[in-house]
Amino acid sequence: MKVDKRIAAIIGGGVIGGGWAARFLLNGWDVRVFDPDPEATRKIGEVLDNARRSLPGLSDVMLPDEGTLSFHDTMSEAVAGAAWIQESVPERLALKRKVYQTLQEHCNVDAVIGSSTSGFKPSELQGCATRPEQIMVAHPFNPVYLLPLVELVTTPANDAGLVETAKDALSGLGMFPLHLRKEIDAHVADRFLEAVWREALWLIKDGIATTEEIDNAIRYGFGIRWAQMGLFETYRVAGGEAGMAHFIEQFGPCLKWPWTKLMDVPELTEELVKTIADQSDTQSGAHSIRGLERIRDNNLVGMMRALKAQDWGAGALLNQQDKARAQGTVLTARADEIADPGQPIVTVRRAVPLDWTDYNGHMNEARYLHAFCDATDRFMELIGCDADYISSGGSYFTAETHIRHLQEVHAGARIEVRTRVLGGAGKKMHLWHEMYKGDELLATGEHMLIHVSLETRRPSVPGPMVAAALTRIAEAQARLAMPDGAGRFVGAPR
Amino acid sequence: MKVDKRIAAIIGGGVIGGGWAARFLLNGWDVRVFDPDPEATRKIGEVLDNARRSLPGLSDVMLPDEGTLSFHDTMSEAVAGAAWIQESVPERLALKRKVYQTLQEHCNVDAVIGSSTSGFKPSELQGCATRPEQIMVAHPFNPVYLLPLVELVTTPANDAGLVETAKDALSGLGMFPLHLRKEIDAHVADRFLEAVWREALWLIKDGIATTEEIDNAIRYGFGIRWAQMGLFETYRVAGGEAGMAHFIEQFGPCLKWPWTKLMDVPELTEELVKTIADQSDTQSGAHSIRGLERIRDNNLVGMMRALKAQDWGAGALLNQQDKARAQGTVLTARADEIADPGQPIVTVRRAVPLDWTDYNGHMNEARYLHAFCDATDRFMELIGCDADYISSGGSYFTAETHIRHLQEVHAGARIEVRTRVLGGAGKKMHLWHEMYKGDELLATGEHMLIHVSLETRRPSVPGPMVAAALTRIAEAQARLAMPDGAGRFVGAPR
Repeated sequence: MKVDKRIAAIIGGGVIGGGWAARFLLNGWDVRVFDPDPEATRKIGEVLDNARRSLPGLSDVMLPDEGTLSFHDTMSEAVAGAAWIQESVPERLALKRKVYQTLQEHCNVDAVIGSSTSGFKPSELQGCATRPEQIMVAHPFNPVYLLPLVELVTTPANDAGLVETAKDALSGLGMFPLHLRKEIDAHVADRFLEAVWREALWLIKDGIATTEEIDNAIRYGFGIRWAQMGLFETYRVAGGEAGMAHFIEQFGPCLKWPWTKLMDVPELTEELVKTIADQSDTQSGAHSIRGLERIRDNNLVGMMRALKAQDWGAGALLNQQDKARAQGTVLTARADEIADPGQPIVTVRRAVPLDWTDYNGHMNEARYLHAFCDATDRFMELIGCDADYISSGGSYFTAETHIRHLQEVHAGARIEVRTRVLGGAGKKMHLWHEMYKGDELLATGEHMLIHVSLETRRPSVPGPMVAAALTRIAEAQARLAMPDGAGRFVGAPR
Repeated sequence: MKVDKRIAAIIGGGVIGGGWAARFLLNGWDVRVFDPDPEATRKIGEVLDNARRSLPGLSDVMLPDEGTLSFHDTMSEAVAGAAWIQESVPERLALKRKVYQTLQEHCNVDAVIGSSTSGFKPSELQGCATRPEQIMVAHPFNPVYLLPLVELVTTPANDAGLVETAKDALSGLGMFPLHLRKEIDAHVADRFLEAVWREALWLIKDGIATTEEIDNAIRYGFGIRWAQMGLFETYRVAGGEAGMAHFIEQFGPCLKWPWTKLMDVPELTEELVKTIADQSDTQSGAHSIRGLERIRDNNLVGMMRALKAQDWGAGALLNQQDKARAQGTVLTARADEIADPGQPIVTVRRAVPLDWTDYNGHMNEARYLHAFCDATDRFMELIGCDADYISSGGSYFTAETHIRHLQEVHAGARIEVRTRVLGGAGKKMHLWHEMYKGDELLATGEHMLIHVSLETRRPSVPGPMVAAALTRIAEAQARLAMPDGAGRFVGAPR
């Protein structure tokens, strides 16, 4: 039987099997599914919907064309010609062993048989199989189509060449195969999850905290840290220049204190401390502690601002905070509260965030437009084109933009955008933004916006309140001189 | 003594005390530091440097002006007039109690005395203090200036009004006070950290995994999940429509299996299962499972792409993956490998990521420029203005941009940018980008770039190799007709 490097067989199509199917399919593999559940087609379709909206854009290059998805009534048909067979059936050892027996009667001897098992060791799975060498643990994390981690656990019975093939295939799927050569119940990651789960059950049982309080204790604190550096590198940074061994010894006594319900801990021998400190040097020694701190802060700011854009978790907190801070300032005033609508209106006042800077060390050119968009959004709010108005079906879309980048600006600098209306009649709104750092003009933005119906996506006239507010400001500002640079085309002589 | 609402006294100025100082100072409070360490000024200065580059831009509105920082030789001087006193001295109960005694001799009775203790319960801190009502645990997470979580732990001895004052003050600093009313050793978050730490020590001692493998097991998998949803909401999503109670019962048997070293677990009574399921409903019941899945995926994509921009953790994996995928395609070709330099050159091929869309559901206008910047970067690489060239001191900066937004585009759509040179001589490079979805023209970008010396930040002529490559393409493309829309100004008639 010919093994096609691009055929994957999915045995069991629940949330995990479906996630594997999506991961393979969107990376160009043909996927053959076997699952006796009559709902399997619908369930995998739902996982695929989620994967299609999120995975392709995660990459900055194009994924290959999707492979072909097919459903099969028998395992023998599903595995024919497959290079990878992924078993994700329920966690019952006897069932899994029975499945492998059937698989091995029909699959190619060169195929990888990966198991999604959370708990069983590979030696248990291999048991008395005909060909133990092709069975290994490939334990992924939900959602499988997005998270890179796969624990690949093997035994000496596995074929070394096939293990390399498996690692290459997983890397080719954009995953990170963490190869564990020493097997243990529940592998590595789930042991931590289980430890936290046990402690959480005690906290709830003893009435110390609720599920929501526990989730908040995680996601507003160490959860964000762990997303980028994990446990040891985080502690390396916290320990500072004194080093990892010092950090461990300093916190050693806590191990004897009742800080967890479960108290059996290894003795902190000199040897264990040295092992940890040496491993940490190998892992992170290329960076100074100060360097790691800055890397960590860049990561935290980037992730928290990503959550801010989604208005979720730590990002939702930041938005609440911004709203409270902005209250009563010029940035939350209504149109009729503006002291002098005949003058440019302040629409943005902020510091340049770390994630707006690029390899040149200055604000990336696209973020100038980002700031001008924020200014446009604020101006729209001012004339009554706010969230309520937009949800009633009208909005302004930008048709055309011209930006002059006059000066560089760096992270942390305080910037301000002042906005003028150059024209506001009918469906059109012609805006002019000037970005300043103090008195220094950094950039100008000229924008033509068109009012649209969000139903038809076609131009339409704005509502009377919005039109009136826009006209009032446009007329008040009409007596100002035309700003320098307005009406400019790219490459025009100065 | 008058309590000034904007004075904070920092008692102990290490990493944690310094982080508190930065948090208060950058939120407009005056900060008075007491720390007998002769290095305290330098240490706090270093923390402040980190905070100043990262915190102000985290917000989308301006922080207030920084307060005044001062260092004091005595506790009595530091606490005079302070509304908040934060104790971050070493974790020795006798020392902390002695500090409170001195503080209470000099501070106002209305001041909050917060302790950064990781382990001690507030009743232990209050001990036999003169005024136990003003002493509470306010346990923050490193870096204190960025992470929002503060565990605020109180006892019935605390003054209820003062606890509310403390919560308001912490919220005003952009923090999240998690108010624990039932005290326990190590509060909540550190119990989880300790549980994971103990399990990690066993894994290293038993030679199962190294520090780096453990960190990767965390940050490529559940760490990213926890950063946004924590433990219970993550499991709620994983459990699917069957519900939280079903999920707990399904995984109940694992509690009896040797999945952690430490085995003492609460019995999963019907009552405990119901408590957890009910709490989870209160926490997340407003969203359907399908809704939560989409929220989770939006968050994960946003955070992973934030890490991608920093080339770190899961984001570094994505970059490696992109590089491998792009290898050998038109996007990695060198200038002399381009089949026909007389035709527009493909410089971007990608799917629109989730984090590029906005409340209108379509690609945000600033991301059009983002894609055009990527196209410009790729074109620069093509003519030899690559990372090596840039690190040698020269680069192109964009001076002027004109964009026509012709069509909307949504997340997941495959887009392509084709690039032309409209002029390339001396210090100038005049580029024209067209963005397509299939055959549909979505937008055009016209850009004037100027070659600069990165040392002087002034215009300079490019190196001879770069100049020659640019000229070659410019000359080959000179015979193409001028593209429609080039040289347009905002609001020009069609």
